[in-house]
Amino acid sequence: MSRRRQIYEGKAKILYEGPEPGTLIQYFKDDATAFNAQKRGTINGKGVINNRISEFVFTRLSHIGVPTHFIRRLNMREQLIRQVEIVPLEVIVRNVAAGSLTKRLGIDEGETLPHTLLEYCYKDDGLGDPLVSEEEIACFNWASHEEMQDISSMAIRINDFLCGMFSAINIRLVDFKLEFGRLWDGDYSRLILADEISPDGCRLWDMTTGEKLDKDRFRRDLGGEEDAYREVARRLGLLSENDS
Amino acid sequence: MSRRRQIYEGKAKILYEGPEPGTLIQYFKDDATAFNAQKRGTINGKGVINNRISEFVFTRLSHIGVPTHFIRRLNMREQLIRQVEIVPLEVIVRNVAAGSLTKRLGIDEGETLPHTLLEYCYKDDGLGDPLVSEEEIACFNWASHEEMQDISSMAIRINDFLCGMFSAINIRLVDFKLEFGRLWDGDYSRLILADEISPDGCRLWDMTTGEKLDKDRFRRDLGGEEDAYREVARRLGLLSENDS
Ligand SMILES: Nc1ncnc2c1ncn2[C@@H]1O[C@H](COP(=O)(O)OP(=O)(O)O)[C@@H](O)[C@H]1O
Ligand SMILES: Nc1ncnc2c1ncn2[C@@H]1O[C@H](COP(=O)(O)OP(=O)(O)O)[C@@H](O)[C@H]1O
Ligand SMILES: [Mg+2]
Ligand SMILES: [Mg+2]
Repeated sequence: MSRRRQIYEGKAKILYEGPEPGTLIQYFKDDATAFNAQKRGTINGKGVINNRISEFVFTRLSHIGVPTHFIRRLNMREQLIRQVEIVPLEVIVRNVAAGSLTKRLGIDEGETLPHTLLEYCYKDDGLGDPLVSEEEIACFNWASHEEMQDISSMAIRINDFLCGMFSAINIRLVDFKLEFGRLWDGDYSRLILADEISPDGCRLWDMTTGEKLDKDRFRRDLGGEEDAYREVARRLGLLSENDS
Repeated sequence: MSRRRQIYEGKAKILYEGPEPGTLIQYFKDDATAFNAQKRGTINGKGVINNRISEFVFTRLSHIGVPTHFIRRLNMREQLIRQVEIVPLEVIVRNVAAGSLTKRLGIDEGETLPHTLLEYCYKDDGLGDPLVSEEEIACFNWASHEEMQDISSMAIRINDFLCGMFSAINIRLVDFKLEFGRLWDGDYSRLILADEISPDGCRLWDMTTGEKLDKDRFRRDLGGEEDAYREVARRLGLLSENDS
């Protein structure tokens, strides 16, 4: 039915050519992968929920002055976005030790970090998204020094906002991943937030029970991933009575 | 019954000597005032709600690294706090035009400001808490340049956090007031957030209906102030089923 051109198919989303130059359509799949795609599966309804949560978060971030690629949601699984040149970095923001950090530094999962930590991984599936230093980022020209300043200050603001947002719904924001992209205007570019913010790329723990409401349920075979994603959406008021 | 010494009675709260040196007890009254106390009244149950909301907000702000005077809630109307030397400024953070700003600059209420604005008023009831410039603050030594930098960066972080927190419960944070105080350690002091954060000092509008959920209901004789304050607490999950 759809005659539009597919630009890219990733692990969780597909990008199609958008209706106007400089736009794309981001389609959210139910596909889930973990451990650099060595583990694959499906989380039913995930695409619908992530599309909705990401719309909610990006819209509200733009209200506080964080520029994003989001234009509008088109339907259950698709949103219209601005096309950017993706900075090839995964920007990880950590408030509490979990995941790879606990292994790398021998810290217990759940320990609150003395300060919020920013980490950068080079986006390359072949290499397994390796951790890189700011010197390496400058050396290989993945982002300029000025861009890294913009990225870190936006990441800190986004973290403050999301900590507030999740704390209002009794969820602890443990860590999350961001991607940024360049919007070119002639010879100049500015950075905006791209990709998605959803339980796929966040660690979200219920503040009371500690229950995991994110992709770790899938990574660790805990089960109940559909319900966990829906629970986050429900607490954000994004499920109508009929859906819940 | 209580033999403890009263330190200060203000318009909305009473301060008592705390159990240990350097601590105070902050008691939340139901008294409401507006227009520099020219209008006076009572909002039933306000003290209980504000004590609870302020506890919630200050606790979570400390989790993101904003230092505050809050130690713990003692009972329905009281909380234990650290005694500070209050910086004699009301720090107003504005996201949307409302209140005195609309009159002073002729902007329509409800207009989103191009940027978040910080304003400072000199805390002096006799003078009606007049607006002051940063030059005046330095000139009269109400706060040092370094302190003003700390105040503004904390205020911006608090705003990002609160915007997130309220947006999760479908509330627009229009503006709010903060107070900071100095915690002395020998010859050195550091600034921490003091006073309270509650619907008394915030403008909170329902994002869908635009309904005011704050002290403007009292200021403007809109009625329903008890319900409005309770609604904010309810959305934050702070009323048990029995209370609501
Ligand atoms: N606004 C945008 N413009 C161009 N590319 C984007 C934009 N937002 C996200 N992307 C990229 O689109 C892809 C989204 O699909 P995803 O399944 O997450 O892919 P991947 O498997 O590469 O992570 C990612 O590679 C991401 O970097
Ligand atoms: N931690 C603290 N230490 C000392 N004073 C404080 C602290 N927190 C708040 N205050 C002050 O206590 C008073 C609180 O009572 P309130 O009714 O708000 O008084 P006011 O009518 O002066 O605004 C305020 O004057 C405020 O500046
Ligand atoms: Mg991806
Ligand atoms: Mg006061």
